[in-house]
Amino acid sequence: MTQHAVIVGAGLAGSLLACHLARAGWKVDVYEGRPDPRNAGFIGGRSINLALSTRGIDALNQVGLAERVLKDAVAMPGRMLHDKEGRQTFQPYSGKQNNFINSVSRGGLNITLLKAADDYDSVTLHFERSCTGIDLKQGIATVCDLKNQTSTTPECDLLIGADGAFSKVRESMATQAGFSHSISYIDHGYKELTIPAAADGSHVLDPEALHIWPHGESMMIALANQDGSFTCTLFWPWNGPISFNAIKRSEDVQPLFEAHFKDVVPLMPDLVELYMKNPTSSLQTIRCGPWHFGDKVVLIGDSAHAIVPFFGQGMNAAFEDCTVLTRHLSASDSVAQAIAGFYAEQKPNAEAIADLALSNFIEMRDTVRSPIFNVKKKIERFLTQISRGRYKSLYEMVSFTTIPYAKVCQRARRRQRILLAALFTLTAVLIICGLLAIGSTF
Amino acid sequence: MTQHAVIVGAGLAGSLLACHLARAGWKVDVYEGRPDPRNAGFIGGRSINLALSTRGIDALNQVGLAERVLKDAVAMPGRMLHDKEGRQTFQPYSGKQNNFINSVSRGGLNITLLKAADDYDSVTLHFERSCTGIDLKQGIATVCDLKNQTSTTPECDLLIGADGAFSKVRESMATQAGFSHSISYIDHGYKELTIPAAADGSHVLDPEALHIWPHGESMMIALANQDGSFTCTLFWPWNGPISFNAIKRSEDVQPLFEAHFKDVVPLMPDLVELYMKNPTSSLQTIRCGPWHFGDKVVLIGDSAHAIVPFFGQGMNAAFEDCTVLTRHLSASDSVAQAIAGFYAEQKPNAEAIADLALSNFIEMRDTVRSPIFNVKKKIERFLTQISRGRYKSLYEMVSFTTIPYAKVCQRARRRQRILLAALFTLTAVLIICGLLAIGSTF
Repeated sequence: MTQHAVIVGAGLAGSLLACHLARAGWKVDVYEGRPDPRNAGFIGGRSINLALSTRGIDALNQVGLAERVLKDAVAMPGRMLHDKEGRQTFQPYSGKQNNFINSVSRGGLNITLLKAADDYDSVTLHFERSCTGIDLKQGIATVCDLKNQTSTTPECDLLIGADGAFSKVRESMATQAGFSHSISYIDHGYKELTIPAAADGSHVLDPEALHIWPHGESMMIALANQDGSFTCTLFWPWNGPISFNAIKRSEDVQPLFEAHFKDVVPLMPDLVELYMKNPTSSLQTIRCGPWHFGDKVVLIGDSAHAIVPFFGQGMNAAFEDCTVLTRHLSASDSVAQAIAGFYAEQKPNAEAIADLALSNFIEMRDTVRSPIFNVKKKIERFLTQISRGRYKSLYEMVSFTTIPYAKVCQRARRRQRILLAALFTLTAVLIICGLLAIGSTF
Repeated sequence: MTQHAVIVGAGLAGSLLACHLARAGWKVDVYEGRPDPRNAGFIGGRSINLALSTRGIDALNQVGLAERVLKDAVAMPGRMLHDKEGRQTFQPYSGKQNNFINSVSRGGLNITLLKAADDYDSVTLHFERSCTGIDLKQGIATVCDLKNQTSTTPECDLLIGADGAFSKVRESMATQAGFSHSISYIDHGYKELTIPAAADGSHVLDPEALHIWPHGESMMIALANQDGSFTCTLFWPWNGPISFNAIKRSEDVQPLFEAHFKDVVPLMPDLVELYMKNPTSSLQTIRCGPWHFGDKVVLIGDSAHAIVPFFGQGMNAAFEDCTVLTRHLSASDSVAQAIAGFYAEQKPNAEAIADLALSNFIEMRDTVRSPIFNVKKKIERFLTQISRGRYKSLYEMVSFTTIPYAKVCQRARRRQRILLAALFTLTAVLIICGLLAIGSTF
């Protein structure tokens, strides 16, 4: 008998999961509160462009979508660092030539995924249907049709919360004793700005790089869009000398950018207007568990594990969830067993990437500027080349493989221990040699 | 001009804080949803007896209440360990004779504190007045009179959430971006049982000890009440061989107790009935921050930092908050500065005791049984004696001093490092001596 899934949320995770489940023979209904972006244009969500890397591509590939998505992407083989004088330095992400991350438009990607999901006869997409409540014991969502304000309670064999960081499904699980959950904010917020395309539609900075102005506490990045523009994101502290709370008056914006992000000022004619108009948002890590309730409710993606954006892995981790959940559903005897197995497999990975994303902020904003970091990167690229790609840096394991995040962390820790042991041994050998040399002179 | 505080919650923390603030010259209104326990008898709250130790006594002492509370307490200078055969072994908590923790009745203590608060002309207690909402920006609570269902919004200079682990005030702060918060459950729940007094009203076990049946995963403790009874608490996992979910049928209760808690079976005539009737509750750690909002809302006690009960410090930490908050209010230029200072001082201490309470569970249930633990305790008692009390074990620093919890943890870590360094040095010296000995034989 065909099994039936209800997915709450038709964002990136929800729409890709619909494709995966349809391929696996499921009947799928997806409910989304927002209007259909294929008609209405894309509304909401966080950053307007995202970095798609190997895990995400792998999950798209499982349902034959990788090629379609990548043709609209801008490849980024490395970082372009901008110093305060506007000098640019390129740092490749990998010692291997064909390793790059891809700048994709969130809105465009969502539309591609929705079209792909809609192409399956067994998938039905419902827009302007908001989830207003969950009966966790029964595993049934109450869905309100926003047009005529009528509610329905669609029956299903599996109810999936793919409704993002502020998930309704998670919120209802959070009312249950035994559901551990946390939200922790960092001291930084973010604001998006735009560098428009040149008059001829070309990019005014190298599009094939993730641009970083790594000025310590107050960082800015920029990713290319296909229309020739760049979306910049300021990651600034809320408080302090260069901070969102310090720069609130329009007359303070330009002088600050002149001093710290000099080279972008001529590229951003609407800087002051955009800075004053665009919202400032907070950055948070959400952890919870278990992601499943009873025998038929489960969370995926941001609703289970929203992370800070500094490793560019939020979407990739959510897409990986689609692959792993579908694999468990296909391999298990029951839905209950599958969702428990999915949680057991992915929870350590979610914790690992949450921690990596937090620590990569430090790397992006501080250490990428340091000469030691640069030497370390060069050694790593050299190791990758002489080992013919067998040696992989932490960044490469995260971005260019599908090695589970938790295993990536284990390997990185093991490597650190080996390095320490090698240093210790070397020191010991040097001391012994020194002692022998002294001994032989007497 | 007299400053005016509104306290939400007339539990242990709220009623003691009312006394502290009144002493410091504040006008205080306390709102509590439950009926007045002085008329209605005590309703609600968690465990019915609690362990009062030095920090709590110190906070009571500041408002002249220590003596009054201690006269109703049962002193416990140590643990009484019960093995599966019912053999008992006494372990003192300290190398100093006059160090003991005190078993106090939660209900009785709450009534004592309410009476004391009510004795101040400047304190008004309002019962059956439930907090139904908070205007955080204004710092004003909406309070509903449960008798006639009318609502009021009392003005104040400081609004204090002392409304426990499921705090309404914290809940409203949790809707704000920037307020990090977590609730994490452990795999164990708890259930209370009773050992009644003997026919002549005497205790059937030694009242001057905290009784522990430290059977690994499935632990039980018992604290004496003044009426000759003991309140026992089962700390069992939710799942597993001996667990709340495994023992649900009344016919399974007696055999399990015969096997694992043999000596209490004859002391608990109503065992099966109580086990089936009494609720099973979860155990959680709540962390959040900042505890203050704007310039006049603040959280204290469990509402800011609920912890697991395994160090017997939840109430003591809450009482310490009363001392520290009142000190900051008296010393600061503004309420805003005071509540920020209070948070900065107490947050690291709350984190430290939360971690200590979690790790003490392992000590209570597992290590207290081990011979190594016993030897370690004997060495520590010996060190305390020869240093005339200057050496203090971790347990002693937590329970018998007012050294801030965070500093206690620092000291414990430093001690561990010194011990490791000493061991390392000793090993190195032995190796060198060995080498010299080999050298001298050739």
